[in-house]
Amino acid sequence: MTIIHVPDRPVGTLTDAWRACVGTGRFNLALRKDYQDSLALVQSEIGFHHIRGHGLLGDDVGVHRPYEVSGERRLLHSFTYVDQVVDAYLALGIKPFLELGFMPSALASGDRTVFWWQGNITPPADHDEWADLVRGVVGHLVGRYGIEEVRTWPIEVWNEPNLAQFWSGDQDAYHRLYEASAHAVKEVDADLQVGGPSLSPGSDEWWAPFAEFVTARDVPVDFVSRHAYTTGPAQHVPFGTYQTLRAPSSLLEQFDAPRRHLEGTALAGLPVHITEFNSSYRPDNPVHDTAYNAAYLAPVLAAGGDLVDSFAYWTFSDTFEEVGIPTGIFHGGFGMLTHGQIKKPTYHLYAFMARMGSHLLARGADHLITRDDAGRITVLGWQPVGGTEDGPEPERHTLRLSVPVDAATAFVMRSSVNETEGNAWAAWREMGRPRFPTSRQLDALREAAEPVRRHTSVAVDGCRMNLELTLGRHEVTLVEIDPVRDESPPWVDDVRILGR
Amino acid sequence: MTIIHVPDRPVGTLTDAWRACVGTGRFNLALRKDYQDSLALVQSEIGFHHIRGHGLLGDDVGVHRPYEVSGERRLLHSFTYVDQVVDAYLALGIKPFLELGFMPSALASGDRTVFWWQGNITPPADHDEWADLVRGVVGHLVGRYGIEEVRTWPIEVWNEPNLAQFWSGDQDAYHRLYEASAHAVKEVDADLQVGGPSLSPGSDEWWAPFAEFVTARDVPVDFVSRHAYTTGPAQHVPFGTYQTLRAPSSLLEQFDAPRRHLEGTALAGLPVHITEFNSSYRPDNPVHDTAYNAAYLAPVLAAGGDLVDSFAYWTFSDTFEEVGIPTGIFHGGFGMLTHGQIKKPTYHLYAFMARMGSHLLARGADHLITRDDAGRITVLGWQPVGGTEDGPEPERHTLRLSVPVDAATAFVMRSSVNETEGNAWAAWREMGRPRFPTSRQLDALREAAEPVRRHTSVAVDGCRMNLELTLGRHEVTLVEIDPVRDESPPWVDDVRILGR
Amino acid sequence: MTIIHVPDRPVGTLTDAWRACVGTGRFNLALRKDYQDSLALVQSEIGFHHIRGHGLLGDDVGVHRPYEVSGERRLLHSFTYVDQVVDAYLALGIKPFLELGFMPSALASGDRTVFWWQGNITPPADHDEWADLVRGVVGHLVGRYGIEEVRTWPIEVWNEPNLAQFWSGDQDAYHRLYEASAHAVKEVDADLQVGGPSLSPGSDEWWAPFAEFVTARDVPVDFVSRHAYTTGPAQHVPFGTYQTLRAPSSLLEQFDAPRRHLEGTALAGLPVHITEFNSSYRPDNPVHDTAYNAAYLAPVLAAGGDLVDSFAYWTFSDTFEEVGIPTGIFHGGFGMLTHGQIKKPTYHLYAFMARMGSHLLARGADHLITRDDAGRITVLGWQPVGGTEDGPEPERHTLRLSVPVDAATAFVMRSSVNETEGNAWAAWREMGRPRFPTSRQLDALREAAEPVRRHTSVAVDGCRMNLELTLGRHEVTLVEIDPVRDESPPWVDDVRILGR
Amino acid sequence: MTIIHVPDRPVGTLTDAWRACVGTGRFNLALRKDYQDSLALVQSEIGFHHIRGHGLLGDDVGVHRPYEVSGERRLLHSFTYVDQVVDAYLALGIKPFLELGFMPSALASGDRTVFWWQGNITPPADHDEWADLVRGVVGHLVGRYGIEEVRTWPIEVWNEPNLAQFWSGDQDAYHRLYEASAHAVKEVDADLQVGGPSLSPGSDEWWAPFAEFVTARDVPVDFVSRHAYTTGPAQHVPFGTYQTLRAPSSLLEQFDAPRRHLEGTALAGLPVHITEFNSSYRPDNPVHDTAYNAAYLAPVLAAGGDLVDSFAYWTFSDTFEEVGIPTGIFHGGFGMLTHGQIKKPTYHLYAFMARMGSHLLARGADHLITRDDAGRITVLGWQPVGGTEDGPEPERHTLRLSVPVDAATAFVMRSSVNETEGNAWAAWREMGRPRFPTSRQLDALREAAEPVRRHTSVAVDGCRMNLELTLGRHEVTLVEIDPVRDESPPWVDDVRILGR
Repeated sequence: MTIIHVPDRPVGTLTDAWRACVGTGRFNLALRKDYQDSLALVQSEIGFHHIRGHGLLGDDVGVHRPYEVSGERRLLHSFTYVDQVVDAYLALGIKPFLELGFMPSALASGDRTVFWWQGNITPPADHDEWADLVRGVVGHLVGRYGIEEVRTWPIEVWNEPNLAQFWSGDQDAYHRLYEASAHAVKEVDADLQVGGPSLSPGSDEWWAPFAEFVTARDVPVDFVSRHAYTTGPAQHVPFGTYQTLRAPSSLLEQFDAPRRHLEGTALAGLPVHITEFNSSYRPDNPVHDTAYNAAYLAPVLAAGGDLVDSFAYWTFSDTFEEVGIPTGIFHGGFGMLTHGQIKKPTYHLYAFMARMGSHLLARGADHLITRDDAGRITVLGWQPVGGTEDGPEPERHTLRLSVPVDAATAFVMRSSVNETEGNAWAAWREMGRPRFPTSRQLDALREAAEPVRRHTSVAVDGCRMNLELTLGRHEVTLVEIDPVRDESPPWVDDVRILGR
Repeated sequence: MTIIHVPDRPVGTLTDAWRACVGTGRFNLALRKDYQDSLALVQSEIGFHHIRGHGLLGDDVGVHRPYEVSGERRLLHSFTYVDQVVDAYLALGIKPFLELGFMPSALASGDRTVFWWQGNITPPADHDEWADLVRGVVGHLVGRYGIEEVRTWPIEVWNEPNLAQFWSGDQDAYHRLYEASAHAVKEVDADLQVGGPSLSPGSDEWWAPFAEFVTARDVPVDFVSRHAYTTGPAQHVPFGTYQTLRAPSSLLEQFDAPRRHLEGTALAGLPVHITEFNSSYRPDNPVHDTAYNAAYLAPVLAAGGDLVDSFAYWTFSDTFEEVGIPTGIFHGGFGMLTHGQIKKPTYHLYAFMARMGSHLLARGADHLITRDDAGRITVLGWQPVGGTEDGPEPERHTLRLSVPVDAATAFVMRSSVNETEGNAWAAWREMGRPRFPTSRQLDALREAAEPVRRHTSVAVDGCRMNLELTLGRHEVTLVEIDPVRDESPPWVDDVRILGR
Repeated sequence: MTIIHVPDRPVGTLTDAWRACVGTGRFNLALRKDYQDSLALVQSEIGFHHIRGHGLLGDDVGVHRPYEVSGERRLLHSFTYVDQVVDAYLALGIKPFLELGFMPSALASGDRTVFWWQGNITPPADHDEWADLVRGVVGHLVGRYGIEEVRTWPIEVWNEPNLAQFWSGDQDAYHRLYEASAHAVKEVDADLQVGGPSLSPGSDEWWAPFAEFVTARDVPVDFVSRHAYTTGPAQHVPFGTYQTLRAPSSLLEQFDAPRRHLEGTALAGLPVHITEFNSSYRPDNPVHDTAYNAAYLAPVLAAGGDLVDSFAYWTFSDTFEEVGIPTGIFHGGFGMLTHGQIKKPTYHLYAFMARMGSHLLARGADHLITRDDAGRITVLGWQPVGGTEDGPEPERHTLRLSVPVDAATAFVMRSSVNETEGNAWAAWREMGRPRFPTSRQLDALREAAEPVRRHTSVAVDGCRMNLELTLGRHEVTLVEIDPVRDESPPWVDDVRILGR
Repeated sequence: MTIIHVPDRPVGTLTDAWRACVGTGRFNLALRKDYQDSLALVQSEIGFHHIRGHGLLGDDVGVHRPYEVSGERRLLHSFTYVDQVVDAYLALGIKPFLELGFMPSALASGDRTVFWWQGNITPPADHDEWADLVRGVVGHLVGRYGIEEVRTWPIEVWNEPNLAQFWSGDQDAYHRLYEASAHAVKEVDADLQVGGPSLSPGSDEWWAPFAEFVTARDVPVDFVSRHAYTTGPAQHVPFGTYQTLRAPSSLLEQFDAPRRHLEGTALAGLPVHITEFNSSYRPDNPVHDTAYNAAYLAPVLAAGGDLVDSFAYWTFSDTFEEVGIPTGIFHGGFGMLTHGQIKKPTYHLYAFMARMGSHLLARGADHLITRDDAGRITVLGWQPVGGTEDGPEPERHTLRLSVPVDAATAFVMRSSVNETEGNAWAAWREMGRPRFPTSRQLDALREAAEPVRRHTSVAVDGCRMNLELTLGRHEVTLVEIDPVRDESPPWVDDVRILGR
């Protein structure tokens, strides 16, 4: 094993792309207390900038409200819940990344739905009424929150129209929807940001026609969006799913797909948002609860910002109902947090990232090293994992570092998450997998979920200190290195504490 | 006008029946933050003992979860949301008054539903599976919260089975459901309280057969329940309803109906719970937002405890979706509080009641007078109103009292709610009825919602003080009278404050 | 009475000078919970920018800590409490306006003290050690909070050195202290702001020599400071004081004194801070608890910003011990808030000011009228009062306004504080002046302390509405006028609410 | 090493004597926010019943307030701060254990004081005025909090009158004070509990005369009190002290002293309260910050309840000023918590005790084992330490247990505090002992202060499981053993998670 020689001077900058956006369960769920408690925790320790989810226009948000007077159809746009949710988001320091969808049933051209919560996936019966709805929603938000604010909220048209389960129309129908939507947005204000096409993995053939369509008809596009997942087909068991998993590099390749496919088109160079990504796209795959998931995503968070403007982990909490109401505390949900705010390993990966500095010192297959303005050096280390084809991983992984420190000693604090440490899911299995833990069990799970912290003082020799880090299975570890200024008074002598 | 001579000594006791229970929107809504914020406010200023609503067994709570293994149907009872809600209730100092219903769709014998949120109203396809579900739910609650606690939670079987929109079966079918449910409850623990039949107004002919059935078959009944409302047929307008209203005495007559109809049966003498009451049974009738509603209910709260063990105002908050998602801040909802916790006049009626003492001194058509253990006398006064046939009420109503006070002076604090004071709805109309008020408008509405307080010092002459109260239109007023112990030091002279 | 014709267009700007700074009891008291609760309330409803009080260097803050090693004197500067207080200030959104003083007893040249809490008022025994202390304190703050932040904190040298009870030296001795302090501050950073001489009223003869001294010796001065009070000699009673009071115009004259006296000197044109002002300078004068005090200060807040850069009300809360520990809830303390956060009328004067817009429309002897960016017009009205020589004031004062409104109707909300409304002190007298109110009495006082709110809708005729305001004795009133956009749907008919 | 065979059935009961009372810095400090934040944390995780400290009657609480009217001395008893503190205590779920002292200076017969904060230690100049003061204070408390409540608050007369630094009178003078005080208390209510003589270690010769005095003169005594400390003379360094330490068994011997010395007297059998105890009696001895202190006290907490009714750790927080204002975050303070709520090892010892069950299964020189009503078994283990004469302790200490478990497996959660784990003081030394840590350093210290948690699942063989615990230096460890009920569904197979 080689020693990583951490340079004295930055080699680049670590951007905030990794926390530019995060995914969420449908809009209506944001009304819930547990959801908001989870989001408050996430914001206090991670601090995402935007949040994106489905269902803004769904029946359970109640925006599109036709009614009759004297037998004549009229329209009311209602914002009782929209205002509650957006007020809450802003109070928690996070902005909406708006997704226009799904179809209000009273405006739908059909009755096909997706998910347990039955989002209607058909094109509008009337594109003028749809445009009116878009203008109504966006206009209301501008009126309530101010145009300067809303201009910072990207507006994405629909979700994964390339999949039949999300869009009953074809690509032309999506283009028609996109055109109506984009113009409606710009009629409210020309500087609002609108984009699409929110493609799921596996349909990159959609890019060229999309670029041609918007170019030919001069339709506004301020950004493009795609999703990224790496699992194979679902192997179902009751209330759960198992799947194969490709290597994490596949995620980075997917992040880069829009750029590759738009090269040479009029859309080349636009901001790219990965508006959803995760290992598995299933909300009932236990991989999401594991330390494996954190180790798997670590290199993606470390490098994703080189490729795209944002990549949104799908999702911040287990408050989520696409395949039904969860039937137990750990159920393979997407969440960084379970119901009741038990932190999963992936939560810690993000919380560790939030402690990194902005000056990039080194980056490799198992590490990311930064320094902040105050001189603190942070090392994010992980055991490389490779997906189904790879592994099983060894019990240990070792990192050796030579770190520049401008002091005689350094204080080193290490936080570890692996198969046993900082791992509530492991504790839960040991408890016998209680579906509905008691209050005492929840307390124990919260304690088990905290990373194990170890600290020590290390001597610096010639402005360099050596650090050997042994990581456990599937470990993600954060090492914080602070130069020490010794304030010990000369009279202090700990040997005397017992008067000896 | 005569003077009300308040006696020196109590003539009775004011029980807590008026706050023994309160109604709520469906179980799933209790997951919401705004709901819990409203409940916290209600509990801090009013303090109900139990809370009852529909939908514990609905699909959106996710309890009944059949699944298949190797083609064979199996059952899981899932409590992810049940635990969240009941934990929250207990943390807020309120206990569930459980209502068993509606039917999980996977157990239903048909697909008829009630409400916008589609509660299935058909009998179970399999009564054994229903009984198993009841045992599962009650057993889980006993396991989590302890048998001593759950024995204090009444368990009511279904809701208004006498109405076709709530029960697709007939009375015999209800009896069968009741029987299965009651036995299932008692199998968990013989001391749990089970009851029914949760009749809506207008079907008192159900009492005799119910009593005969349970007597004949020795089915357990620990309490009986009925509802009470006083409005006529709905006159619909978009997103709203107008209705005629009978006099408030009609509510008290309805409270007394179970006793009258069960006289001479084996059920005579059982506890009677009015598990829902209000003026209008419509969640879109603006009467609920008015001071009229408070004045209307004042005599009912003052006297209801003489007739029944509890009477539950339907409902504590506007978080409610039976006819759809509310389309504006004031929309005629049942709530004492709007979304965002603006207090309606009826909220204040209850908050005033919560300040009454337990020693009843006097009660009449426009007043209720009590004393607490500390000697404070409280007067709840109101302008009598009579419903559609009566009125319009005069601009003023006057009360004259002679009150016993054991001190030389009394401090008198009065809080008023009427057509203009303590009346956010009035302010909202003056604002132009904004459907989705801005943050500033919400602040103004909250300020307008506070009762106007006036205070003064009154001389006592021969242990008696006279009080003349002029009430505005539809006023409910609370007067708190405290004997004064003068601590003013002899050197105090307010005339000297400016050195004059 | 003439009608005030409020112009359509602003005649000037209302600056934030009135809330640029507020006074506080000594530094150590800021450690208390009740103090911080009061400050949190003040900040949420008023929002001061800076806070200034005595005692940063007092023994009960424990900064200056000489010790001996092997018989030799050494110095430790200790910041245990300084950090707790400044952390709390910044967390509450308020910055320190530092006052250097009084003298640590281990550095003092004598043992004379001021106040019940015994601040040492003697010059330093060693000016080098004093300069070292100043550098130590300022340097620590810069290290902890950053130089950008601390540059926004004015640093004032000592308090009222012109008074023998605050400074045992003479003016020369003060100059020497000022010189040592100013240089010490600038040694930490040249852009820090330092100033003085913090004169009490009645010693304006100090200005010229101060200007000459600093000019002659090239001593840095970034701002000048003075205090302003308007009461006569104290007439003592047990635990209290009565005093005569000059007219409020006297305060404005005092605000202007530094400018007048520094004209033509090198200090002309420097920022002027009135680092303390109030009616009475006694913390046991009941005038502070009255509505009179609010009416008295209203014209001062309305106009003070024309004369100075800040004027700091002395003090925001009754947590204050200069003449000993308060012996009852109302005791004539300076506070806008009592212990336990009961709002006094002067609190409301400030809270009303915090709702004014920045566009000045009109100002007069009894009114201040502004508009904000959203078009809301606010009127601050008051009954003019004149001090001891004037009065007693009439029962009523009337204001007539013609107000420009760009809508068909206006929503008008009025908040009143006078001898009976919004007046907890009045309620407390009616209660018999309980020194230590019970929890119930405190609740009643808090309710009595809320302004009485009245609201109505007013028709606008030709873009103008007329408003006649009748004010009670010593009233300060806030009127908020919002143009109405009527959203009432055509089908709404409140007459139908009872189905009539 | 032998195996500890934990029996199946309880051998006794673990009482709450260990948390019946806790010590605190002087009464005035309870006004502070940091103090109340610390107490809130202590109460949420430990839950003491009573709290006792000095200074209720000190000048900085302002109770005794003589004044003159027309040259005549009169008395006011003032409760501004008393009410604030006691309100806060009760809101935090803790009751006062009242200590009457020290002497208000206006009632003192001399000017000798104790501590940096100058408590006057002289007898009253007038015993009638003292008795009046006691009646005034106790009477006020009874009036505010109710007689039922105050009867549960023991009232102790003075503190350590046997020491010249705390009492300038002799034993007879104390008896006279005790007599006046006890009668004054009983005049308020005969069922209030009064006691003394609050002896420091080393003066057990006071017991016999005290017993004789109160017996002879029929003076009420409801309980007796003593203190216990085990350190030798102070070896001073600047802002600190080193001392020798006797074995922890000395504390238990001291606890038992009152019983031994009162045997055969009329006071035999009275409740005994150890109203202060700790290792060192110095608030600047670093031993209090160490894991050693926790290991040292573990056997005392485990066994103390067999000897006395309460033993109060002196003190819960570092908010304490007897030798001056602390000059750094770790300064050898008594507190379980530092300023800013960093948990010391002794805090965890108490938090571990708070998780023990009430059924005592086993107790030995290095362990305490209990079971709770739910069947959870808890093991408190520690490395035995012996004081200055003993040690140094080995790096490791091992415990072997055979534990009865009624399940096939057990979930075992262990929390460790030792020289490196759960030890903020160790981290602070590694940081270079920063006196005034930055916000980031405080966060790191808080993280370092959390016990390291490890969890596993252990197979049970024949209703028994074996547990070998290796403890680090000075470790206190808590092991929680929960019988597992396995809910894993048959289809779960973690090997399939990656689809392998």
